[in-house]
Amino acid sequence: MERIMDSQLEDLKKLTLEMGGLVEKAITISTAGLLKKELNSLKEVHRIEENINDLQKKIDEQCLQVLAKQGPVAKDLRLILSIIKINTDLERMGDQCVNVAHLSRELIERGFANSLSDMEQMFKCTSEMVKASLDCFVRMDIAAAEKVLKMDDQVDAYKKKINLQSIELMKTDTEHLQDHLDYILIARNLERLGDHATNIAEDVIFAFSGKDVRHGNN
Amino acid sequence: MERIMDSQLEDLKKLTLEMGGLVEKAITISTAGLLKKELNSLKEVHRIEENINDLQKKIDEQCLQVLAKQGPVAKDLRLILSIIKINTDLERMGDQCVNVAHLSRELIERGFANSLSDMEQMFKCTSEMVKASLDCFVRMDIAAAEKVLKMDDQVDAYKKKINLQSIELMKTDTEHLQDHLDYILIARNLERLGDHATNIAEDVIFAFSGKDVRHGNN
Repeated sequence: MERIMDSQLEDLKKLTLEMGGLVEKAITISTAGLLKKELNSLKEVHRIEENINDLQKKIDEQCLQVLAKQGPVAKDLRLILSIIKINTDLERMGDQCVNVAHLSRELIERGFANSLSDMEQMFKCTSEMVKASLDCFVRMDIAAAEKVLKMDDQVDAYKKKINLQSIELMKTDTEHLQDHLDYILIARNLERLGDHATNIAEDVIFAFSGKDVRHGNN
Repeated sequence: MERIMDSQLEDLKKLTLEMGGLVEKAITISTAGLLKKELNSLKEVHRIEENINDLQKKIDEQCLQVLAKQGPVAKDLRLILSIIKINTDLERMGDQCVNVAHLSRELIERGFANSLSDMEQMFKCTSEMVKASLDCFVRMDIAAAEKVLKMDDQVDAYKKKINLQSIELMKTDTEHLQDHLDYILIARNLERLGDHATNIAEDVIFAFSGKDVRHGNN
């Protein structure tokens, strides 16, 4: 019985990482799409999101099967509950990537002229955070998950910086208000990607230590 | 054994509704705070959010206990999984309300002069959608949950309208760019409240029918 569950949990972990890999790919393509002004690659993000959505349903279905048939307890149960939550986060991260791709396409089509240096840094920082959150899940590494939680401050700082700069630009460059607004919205979507990576790290800590560190009360 | 689980599931439903009630209260207070320009009531939203966060942890803990000790299957298991997901949505809805309260306070402190008529309508429409999503959970009403899914279009339409109007105003009223931007962001937070209500309705359909209607593939 135990060995069946072990292999089912391994399968679930693999599927979760497959989904995480798709989210990472969607972030990379969105970034490259905006920075290199490639419209075609942005379409690819929509296709990836569909795969993410399919995987979400598949993972939930398999979690339900394991819960119903194997009746897991203790750390096995915590792992499954964490996978259910990580699954939800990854699906929403797919949505954020689609938003970024959509806003980027509009910016490119309007021939935007915003400076991309801070946005490039913010993309890099967010990607690293997402990657780190998935790595700590693979390696069941609680210390690494705690580090992920601290990475969020930097993502937030970039969002604030881009927000302030865009507002300043809006004051003089009223012809491109929509461009500056879209830029603010892209930064907000990246910030939310960071929030989801935080959730994943919190779920990893719960799965492998049993500690619920959400809302900083523990 | 069955009777113990029944009473535990009843408790979990009650806690979920208590949390839903707090989210509804937070929306009502945020609305009244902005529309009547009441700074004090906006502080109350932060206190409510803390209660929501505490309930989130309590509900997750109780779900884990029931899963570990009672080994539920079929509809009982689906109900618990749905409660775990609804719990996540309600907690995020608490965050949205805090965002709305924060943006509203800033608008009030700057003495904003935006027209509130569309925002009032959008608040009303979003509140109704959130209420309807909780009602269909209480009444285990799949047909009502399907109606909730259709309400999202109206919320989205208000967001688009407010977005376009604010961009128009920004073009001529450059002194109040931050006000118009905050207004856009409040509408986006309300839109996300609507998205969470959609998730809740989808979870209700899954819990009481077994059908996974997410991503419109079924």
